[in-house]
Parts: sequence; structure tokens; C-alpha cells
Amino acid sequence: MSALRFPNLPPSEPQGRNLLAEERANTTFSVHELSTFLYGEAHLERQERLLALIENEPAFDKSRRYFRGRSERFAAALKKDHALVRMSQKHQFTQEEMMHAESLIDEAGPFGLHRGMFMPTLAAQCNDEQLERFLKPAQRYEIIGCYAQTELGHGSNVQGIETTATYLPESDEFEIHTPFLTASKWWIGGLGKAANHAVVMARLITAGKDHGPHAFVVPIRSMEDHTLLPGVMAGDIGPKFGYNTTDNGCMWFDHYRVPRISLLAKYSSVKPGSGEYINPPNAKLSYGTMVLVRASLVGSARQGMAKAVTIATRYSAIRRQFVDKDSPKVLEESGQVVETPVLDYSMQQYRLFPIIAAAYACFFTSKEMMRLYYLNMKNMAAGDFSLLADVHASSSGLKSLTTTMAAASIEECRRACGGHGFSVFSGLPLLLQDYVPNVTWEGDNYMITQQTGRYLFKSFRDLVAKRASGKFKASQITNPTLAYMNTYLDNPGLKCPATTPGQFHNPELQLAAFGHRAASLVAQIVHALDVEKRTWNSMLVDIYNVSVAHCQLILVQNFILGIRGEMPQPEGMPALTPLSAAAKEGLRDLSDLFAMHTIHKQPGEFLTSGYLDAKQIALLGEAIMELMEKKVRRNAIGFVDAFAFPDYLLNSALGRFDGKVYEAYTDMATKEPLNQTEVVEGYAEYIKPYTNPKNLSGKTMQARL
Amino acid sequence: MSALRFPNLPPSEPQGRNLLAEERANTTFSVHELSTFLYGEAHLERQERLLALIENEPAFDKSRRYFRGRSERFAAALKKDHALVRMSQKHQFTQEEMMHAESLIDEAGPFGLHRGMFMPTLAAQCNDEQLERFLKPAQRYEIIGCYAQTELGHGSNVQGIETTATYLPESDEFEIHTPFLTASKWWIGGLGKAANHAVVMARLITAGKDHGPHAFVVPIRSMEDHTLLPGVMAGDIGPKFGYNTTDNGCMWFDHYRVPRISLLAKYSSVKPGSGEYINPPNAKLSYGTMVLVRASLVGSARQGMAKAVTIATRYSAIRRQFVDKDSPKVLEESGQVVETPVLDYSMQQYRLFPIIAAAYACFFTSKEMMRLYYLNMKNMAAGDFSLLADVHASSSGLKSLTTTMAAASIEECRRACGGHGFSVFSGLPLLLQDYVPNVTWEGDNYMITQQTGRYLFKSFRDLVAKRASGKFKASQITNPTLAYMNTYLDNPGLKCPATTPGQFHNPELQLAAFGHRAASLVAQIVHALDVEKRTWNSMLVDIYNVSVAHCQLILVQNFILGIRGEMPQPEGMPALTPLSAAAKEGLRDLSDLFAMHTIHKQPGEFLTSGYLDAKQIALLGEAIMELMEKKVRRNAIGFVDAFAFPDYLLNSALGRFDGKVYEAYTDMATKEPLNQTEVVEGYAEYIKPYTNPKNLSGKTMQARL
Repeated sequence: MSALRFPNLPPSEPQGRNLLAEERANTTFSVHELSTFLYGEAHLERQERLLALIENEPAFDKSRRYFRGRSERFAAALKKDHALVRMSQKHQFTQEEMMHAESLIDEAGPFGLHRGMFMPTLAAQCNDEQLERFLKPAQRYEIIGCYAQTELGHGSNVQGIETTATYLPESDEFEIHTPFLTASKWWIGGLGKAANHAVVMARLITAGKDHGPHAFVVPIRSMEDHTLLPGVMAGDIGPKFGYNTTDNGCMWFDHYRVPRISLLAKYSSVKPGSGEYINPPNAKLSYGTMVLVRASLVGSARQGMAKAVTIATRYSAIRRQFVDKDSPKVLEESGQVVETPVLDYSMQQYRLFPIIAAAYACFFTSKEMMRLYYLNMKNMAAGDFSLLADVHASSSGLKSLTTTMAAASIEECRRACGGHGFSVFSGLPLLLQDYVPNVTWEGDNYMITQQTGRYLFKSFRDLVAKRASGKFKASQITNPTLAYMNTYLDNPGLKCPATTPGQFHNPELQLAAFGHRAASLVAQIVHALDVEKRTWNSMLVDIYNVSVAHCQLILVQNFILGIRGEMPQPEGMPALTPLSAAAKEGLRDLSDLFAMHTIHKQPGEFLTSGYLDAKQIALLGEAIMELMEKKVRRNAIGFVDAFAFPDYLLNSALGRFDGKVYEAYTDMATKEPLNQTEVVEGYAEYIKPYTNPKNLSGKTMQARL
Repeated sequence: MSALRFPNLPPSEPQGRNLLAEERANTTFSVHELSTFLYGEAHLERQERLLALIENEPAFDKSRRYFRGRSERFAAALKKDHALVRMSQKHQFTQEEMMHAESLIDEAGPFGLHRGMFMPTLAAQCNDEQLERFLKPAQRYEIIGCYAQTELGHGSNVQGIETTATYLPESDEFEIHTPFLTASKWWIGGLGKAANHAVVMARLITAGKDHGPHAFVVPIRSMEDHTLLPGVMAGDIGPKFGYNTTDNGCMWFDHYRVPRISLLAKYSSVKPGSGEYINPPNAKLSYGTMVLVRASLVGSARQGMAKAVTIATRYSAIRRQFVDKDSPKVLEESGQVVETPVLDYSMQQYRLFPIIAAAYACFFTSKEMMRLYYLNMKNMAAGDFSLLADVHASSSGLKSLTTTMAAASIEECRRACGGHGFSVFSGLPLLLQDYVPNVTWEGDNYMITQQTGRYLFKSFRDLVAKRASGKFKASQITNPTLAYMNTYLDNPGLKCPATTPGQFHNPELQLAAFGHRAASLVAQIVHALDVEKRTWNSMLVDIYNVSVAHCQLILVQNFILGIRGEMPQPEGMPALTPLSAAAKEGLRDLSDLFAMHTIHKQPGEFLTSGYLDAKQIALLGEAIMELMEKKVRRNAIGFVDAFAFPDYLLNSALGRFDGKVYEAYTDMATKEPLNQTEVVEGYAEYIKPYTNPKNLSGKTMQARL
């Protein structure tokens, strides 16, 4: 039997392509200008160039992606990763091109962690001999590696891992061993099937002493035939909520011996024979990588939110339900009343527009975090560790806040597409499934806020002490964290002066609200810990909340400074192009919306801090509704178009640039494997026995239509 | 090559089974007593009986469920549904037994909507002739049907559907037709591959007049060989976020003719020949079914939350990370300090315990909603429609609130399991994916709160008018909605008297807080609509919030009354067994936690209503932390054990009753298809070309370990 053919009907009027054209005609700024501001010309040009290559490579075709089961998906991803290596070699991709190509293909694969974790770890922790011996062949893919840290029983607490690496002086070797089931290496990307080497984190034991987790590079599969080496057992950990194109793996060592050179020895090492342990010079240096990873997650949070809200906003401009009786929509030509686009309903605006605003907010803060990362690395290399604590604290809190926001936003966008958001063809389920591990990995989003809290409390205590010492001058403060705390200490009873909705558009007022709230929470917690002597454990919820408050302030602050062109410029990086008045005004609307909506959605702490009162919250609500209806609505499509995501990347029937939503959706359904036959497999066994006339009672036969 | 064999190691101490045994020994009440209170003896006894049957039927085996791709999953579900029909016929299942069996097998299948929507619609809307002709064979599965309402372009707005059914007097037939692509039937469960009949909602057009959507029962596939009938095209709509074991389908009609008897004619009909339309007697009658469905979703919200939190709570009692320095955990025998179970951290408690409490809250309200549904049906049959508006309003708001809570809770539980919550073996991803459509179907959760709002505003306006009339007596109020509004109108400036954390345990204080907040929001919105003349559209966010406030009050109220034994008893249903003092105290802790946490998590409106102040919010926070640590913690495992979910149902490595988490998890991973061979398919093509020594440079060869 042949495949089903669905009819080729047009949707009823108005057509999606016309609706989007109308939206685009209403946009008050140049979308290309805004895209260029976000990404730079070079990025947009590179995207065009790479797209032309990628869309022509069959291994990167996405049209079958949504139909594959786990095993097929993994097989396709392996093929894809191979094709990508070949393409990068042929066209001599720079690292930027490689990363950009990966983000367009947008599918985690078995070689991803080889590039993302294995090689960077080698680069950071190998001595010269090891660089030559391990990193060079890894760059040629002659070695394919993975990064084996997490264990079945330990993720968050890396210091608690149980795998051991015991130095054996007699043979100058390490014996790597898995003592318990809980010590099984688990979740290791690329380990399940693809890698032949691993960086293994294991407790270094030498001369009877446990020196805690250290990194070892070891072969795990034969270079001849890819079978597991004796003493190693490894496999795939099975299906996951997302990321099923990656072979996350598990691994066990049975008294597995490796030579001394396996211990990555740039910082710490073991002396041959005696097994004497040589300490790393400064443990703080290793914080750098953690900051980089967390800071970069702010950027990928932006990316995740921006993709989801592009899909949901475009579809909401096309999807129509009900007629808004107070302001019915009339077709120009026929005069016919048609249903209202759901994007015109204030509830839908309240769901989607703040997500657009949040994506732009994350853009500015992500830029700033990268600047701080590079500045801090430069400082540390010169022996100056003064920035580290602040950068580490804010990167932890921002990782937690922005990835939580992004995961919630993607799901909100999915739901805002109604039933069709549940279809994989919307592009949103897979986006969500692949995005959500961000809230857990690289530090669980609840746990790591303790690092932010600790820094804030210390800063506050120091500031209070300094102020008490009499030797304090406010003008000496250069750190923005201390600045808002100092303002609070100057006037803990500060009250918001706003008496009209319009006054909430004032950036200084917004900053005062966020600063006052964050500082008052810090003061409360420090009082509870230091004066009331409450335990750290009993304060964890408050600590989480204070981290959120601090980081929301950072997001608001960078958004405001960024639009004004007052964000510090990173050394050696191209300056942001200055914005036209129209684009600036559009961004200012989003900046206002971001600050105002953040308060309005969770006003509790702004009220308890004393800065805002009940009446002002009501005014704020009015201001938001008006801002969305009068200003943001007409630019909504422009804002998401400026994210410049090609249809190939979004792979969404609902989020298409051309608005042909229903046509694309139906077309994707025809490709469903179940539609390749008219009568389903299993009919004869499981349906026919009941329903075929030959089996039926005479009574039923006669009852047929 | 043979399958991989993972090593058989024990986890490190302490063992999960011992930890759970310790937890169970600490429980202050009888778990069996609480289970019996929740479900009744008959349910628990039936569960044992059905489990014995089901676990022995190979078609119901769950051990392969997590590994299947879409097509295999559908095939297995078809086989499963067939086996279930056979089993139900052999053992002559009652309807209760059938539903209970379905909930244990816990997998939506192609026949689910036949039972859940097709037959109930026939039962409700057929005349006697149609019952004989359609319902009877459907009960014998000789007809397998689906319910085709939603279209590609219309879900929320049923009145907007575009499929037509035009009466043709000359042949006494209806012609069913799909005029546009947007009119394609879409999302119809069971239609994709299995059904041979459909109830089709189409606009009834007769004598040139459009009478809006009506239900028609029509054959769609041949009873001989299951091919599509001429004039009908239908197929599967493709993969979805969840529910992939159901064949949600799409369908088009091309001037498809069916006899007049196809129009379900219990309420409205068409006269032969003239085509005269006969009106339904009372359109309100059809609200009954909507109320039933929405009310029953409160029960399934409870079920969803309870399952997720059982898994997360058990695993959190076993999973250990870090040592809480203020209160380190010491092993009794060895005196060794071990890591703290994550359930002892206040943050984890704040994430999980309110979900336990919410599940219990939904239990009481679900019971009450079913009572009201039956009472209202009885009243309406006797011509009394006085309850309808209240029941319809609260069922809409509660559907929205509880399904939103449940979806968020399941995801929170998933994340609270750390990385392992991302593994499908945790049971949580599939639970989430199959649960989330609840927030969209049966009325989108944002949209339907307008129905709740409308009722509240009308009630408030009527009450204000009555009070102004001078003829009003508070003692006449029997409706709890009017009661809390009246209390507010008596004293809009009411303030909470609490000055210590302990005072928040007072149920009357809790009810006053929720009542005052809900009524003050109603008053505000009515003022904005009636006095400030704001448009309905501009108030949608506030309307959503007021519905949440009203329904949270209902949940709190029923929880309090239910524990006291003061909830009205449904006629003809068995009374709840009275609770022992110990169980009552346990539930009172949860009731307190539910009310207190609901305020604490989103205190904004309690502050702006004027009832609570900043200081009281801080006291409330202290009260919650103490309640969780001192009271709820020791009973946490008891509370989730009382939900009485068998391991077979949860199908979770992390949530096992016996605590053998790591052993079960590793065992499930061995079954992963990728682990059935040692060297992955694709190695020769995609990995070997880089890594095999024969291809490598001499330099690399020599670099090997």
C-alpha cells in the first residue's frame, strides 16, 4: 500500500504570509540594524555562508529528525558529527565557524564533548609533554575523548567522588579502580559508544594519602577495533528526557593500570618512585574555567529564550481565536469581521513580551560577563585576584537565574502556542528537552546560589564594618554591589516617589527599586545568621531568593547601561555599533518592560522592603499593560525577526518566517512513518477480530450505515 | 558480539533499603490507615487483585517501554489495548475495574478515546434508535470510534470550527465537507490509525441557515479491510511531546454524504424533507459534561503530583550530597560521618513538601467537586439550575489552577532529583510529557479563568446591590463565595492579628487571609471595569489572578473542613472513615503547610490586600521552616507511601519502594539497545577512518600509551 496523500487546501482568510507582512510594515525600526547591533556584520555574513554549505549536506538535513527513535537518532548524529569534521577540515573552519556551524545544525552529538570538554581540559591542565602526546592527536580526531567526572552517587559534590587512582611506586603506574556501584562514572557525554579515551576524575592516593579528585587521561577502547580495553567496562546510560543524540555513558574500572604520565600535570604532579605529591600553586586558578562556563550559559539562555519566543510570537500573530468585542478585527477588503489574533490579547502579551524583553536583557549581561571573565583572567595572570570573588559570585547566580528563566520561558512559549505547541513539529518540545539540563548541570540552580549568597554577606559585613570604622568614603566605592548596599545603608527607609503609571519608565527609579530590595534582603539574612544565630541550612530559601534579587538587578542594570552605550567596552573586542533613535526607543521599551514586569510578577519583596506600596503596584500594572499594547505590540515581530534565526535552525512549522504555518504543518505530518501505509500494522491481529463483518453478530451487521 | 555486562557492585554505605526502613520506623501514623482514608478498602483490595492479573500479562510488561521509538510504541500500545479488552471481557470487568486497570497500566492507547469520549458522547446525545444502532456495537468494540472536534485552526473557540454538514432534502442526507485547510480535523485521539467511526463536530446547515456545531456519527474506514472510505482522508498527525502511544489523527471530508440518522438527535434534530431545525430544550444541560471533565481533572492533578513527589521524596531520602556542618550525619555502627541526605536540606524540603501537601489538598477538593457535580446534575434534572453557575465557575478555575500546579510540580520533582531526574528511568520525564497536555486541553488554563472571573464579578455586584437595598441579611448567605465577599465588605481594612510564627497555624486566620485577598481582588477588578471603564481585554491578567486566588481559597477551605470531618457527604457514596488522632495531626501539618506556603511563595496580593504586613511575612517564613523541619520531615516517607502507588505503576529506578535505587538504575541501563553490542554500528564508517592505527601518522602511533 502506498503513502497517504493529504489534500492540498488553502487556509481560510486572512493568510499567515499577509498577516506577517502587515506586522513587518508596522515595525518602527530597522530589523537589520538591530540584528547587526546584536551580532555584528561578521556574524550575519558568516551565517549566510555557513548556511549555504550546511543546507546542502545531506547529513545535516533536518526533515527526518523528528521521526527517529533513540537508536536511529544516535546513528544519524554519529554520521552528522563525522560529516561536520570532514566539512571543517575541507573548509578549514576557524573555531568560531565551527561553533557557529554547530549552533545552526543544533544537535548534540557523540563528538560534542570531545571538543567542548576533553580538549579544553587537556589544553588547560597538560604539561608540555602531555600536550604533544594527547592534545595534538585529539585535534586531528585520532584520539576521541570524553570527560568523566560525575558518578552515579555524586554530581553536585565533586569532592565526594569515589573512584580512586592509587600510585604504585614499584611500577610507576596509577591503578584506577571503581570500589562501589555509586562510584560508577555516569552521564559522561560521548563515553557510551564513541570515545576511545577519557579524562577521568579520580581521588589521587599516593603514599597512603588521599589528595582528592585529580584528572587522568586514559585510553578506554582499542585503537585497533574499538573494543573495550581489559579492565574497563563502559556503555550507554539509556534514554533521557532530551539529548538522545548523545551517548551519555557509564564506566567502571577494575584495578586498571595506566602510566604515570596519565595524571594531568600542569599544576599538580607525583614524583616517580617516592610518589611524593606536588601541590598546585594556586587552587583559585581553576575557578576561571567555571566562571567561563557559567558566563557562557547566560548567552545560551538568551539563545534558548529567543528561539522559543520567535516561534510563539510569529504563530500568535497568525493564530486567531474569538472576537474581542471591544475592538473587533475587520478585513480591509471584504469588511468581514474575523477572529482576533491571539497576540492582541493582553494575557498573551503578558506571557510573551516579557520573554522577548528577557532575551534582550540576557544579551547585554552575557556581553558584560564575558568582558569580566577576560579581564579577570588577565588580572589573575598578573597575580591580581581582586575581581575573582565578584565575578565568581555573579556568574553563579546569573547561571542559576537565567537558565531557570530560559527553561520556564521555553515551556511558557510552548503552552502559548495552544495545542500545537505539543506537536514536535512546533520545534518547541525538542528545544525544551535539550535545553532543560542547563538548570542542573554546571552547578544545580538551587545549590550554586549559596556561592552568590556567601559573597553578598561577606561584602555587606565588610561594608558595615568599614562604615563603622569612620575611615569610610562613599566615593571610594567602584564595585556596583557595594554601591547599592551603601545606598541602602544610607537610607533603609527609602520609598518610591511614583504617583502615576508613567513614572515607572524612569531607569533610576527601577534601579533604586531593585537595589533597595536586594540590599534589604542581604541585611535581613545577615541579621538572621549573625544576630539570631540561625543555621545556614535553615536560611537556604532566603539565600536562593537573595541571589535572584542580586542577579535581577545586574540584568536590569546592564540593560539600561547597554542601551545608553555606557557599558564598559572589552579590550580588543569590537565596540557595539551605536543605535539609531528608533532602535534605541524600541530597546528602551523592552528594558522598561523587563524591569517593570519582573517587579509586577513577584512584587512580594519590593513590598516587604518598603520601597513600593500596594497603590504603586496597581499603577505599575497599568503602566505595563499600556506599554505592551501601545508600544511593544507593533514591534513584536520586528524584535523577534532581529534575532535572525533562519528557518533551517528553528525547524518549526509554527515559527516560519513566511507565515505559512498550516501548510508546513500538514506537509510535515505527511512524512510521519505511520502515514506511509493506509492500513496500520497490527490491524489483522488487534482490530479485525472485533470489527470485520465476518466476525460480527447479525444484529450488528444490520445496524451498519 | 554479545551484550555488555555491567559489574555487580554494591553501593557505598549507607544502603537505600536501610535508609527507607529508618524513615518508615520514624513515621508517627499508620500508613495503611491513611491509604484507606484516601482510597477506601475496596480500592486497595481491587488494586491488589488487578495487579496480580496485569503483572502476569506480557502485553502489559513495562520493562521495554522506555526504549521504544514512536512506531514501536504505537504498535505496542495497540497490542496492549487489545489485550486489555480481552482481559476485561474474560474477567467481566466493571467500569471501575476497567478504569483502575487502565490507570495501573498507565499508557494512553488507540482505544482510549473510544471509551473516554466516543461512547460517552453517544450515551449522552443519541436518541433511542441511535443508542441501539451505534452505542451497542461500540460497547462490543465492533465499532471503534473517536471524537473529532478540534480543527487545525480552531481549538479554544469551538464555535469557530469550519467543517460543514449541509442537509440535502432531496436525498435526506448530510454532506460533510472540509472547506479549508484550517478546517482539517486535528489532534483527534484514536483517529490516526485505529478508529473506523467518528463523532464529527460540524456546522449544521439546513435550509440555508447555519446552526453552529453539532455532532454527527459517521463511518470513516471500511469494516471489511480498514481502508479509508471514499470521500474521507485521514492519518496520524505525527510525533508529540508526549502521548506518542496514541494515534492522534487528522481528517478531511470531500463532500462526504451520510444518512440523516448520523446527526445525534437526543436534543436537536432536523425534520426529514423540509430540513426544519428543532432546537435543543436547554443549552445549559450540556454544561454538565464540561463540569464533570474539569472536576475529574482535579483528581488527576492529585494523581500526577502524588506520583512525582513519591519518586522525588524517596530518592531524596537516599541521595546524599555534602555534609551539613551544623548537624553532621553519623553512621550508628561505625561512627563514620557520612554525607547528609538531601531531604534534610531546607531548600529541598521547600521544593518537595509543599507538593506533598498540594496533592493532599487536591484530594479533598476533588472529592467535593464530584459531590457538587452529582448534586447539580440531580438538581438540573429537577429543573433547578441554581448551583450550575457556581459549580461551572469553580470547576473551570480549579481545572486551571490544579493542572498548572501539577505540571509545575512534576517538573520541580524531576529537577529535585538532580541529574538523574533527566534519565527516563526516573519515570519523571514520561510522566511530565504525558501530563502536560492537561494545561491546554479541556479549556486552556489562561482562557478558562475568564469563566471564573465572570461569575465572581456578577456575584460581587449582586451582593453589593443587595446590601445597598437594605433588605439584606448576612445569615441568609449559604454560598461560601458570597460569604467571603460579604466578610470583606463588612471590613475591607481587616488586618491579620499574628505576632508570632505559631499563630499562623490557626485555620481561621488562614481562611481569613485567603478570603480577604480574593475578595479585595474582585473588588478592585469590578471597580476597574465598572467605574474606570477599562476594557475586558486589558484586565485579563487580573482576571487570571483572581481566579487563582478564589480557587486557592477553595483548596485551603476543603482541606481544613475535610480533616475536621466537616465536608458535606455525597449522597449514596461511602462516608470517609474517621481519622485517628495521629493521622489527623499529620494531615493538619500538611494543611498548615499548604496554606502557609501558598502565601509565602507569592505574598504580593496578601500584602497589597492589606491583610498581611512585611513583618508577618517574615514570621510566616520562620513558621514554615520550623513546621517542615520539626514535623513534616519525619513523616515525609509515610505521606508518600500512603499514596499506595505500586512499583509497577511508577516504573521508576529512583522511586522504588525498597530503596534499591542504584541497583535498579544500572540494571535498566543494561537493557538499552545500544548496549546489546560492544562496538557501535557506524564505527567502521564514522570513527575508524580517524582512529585506526593503519590510518594514523607515525607521530601519533608513537604517542600512544
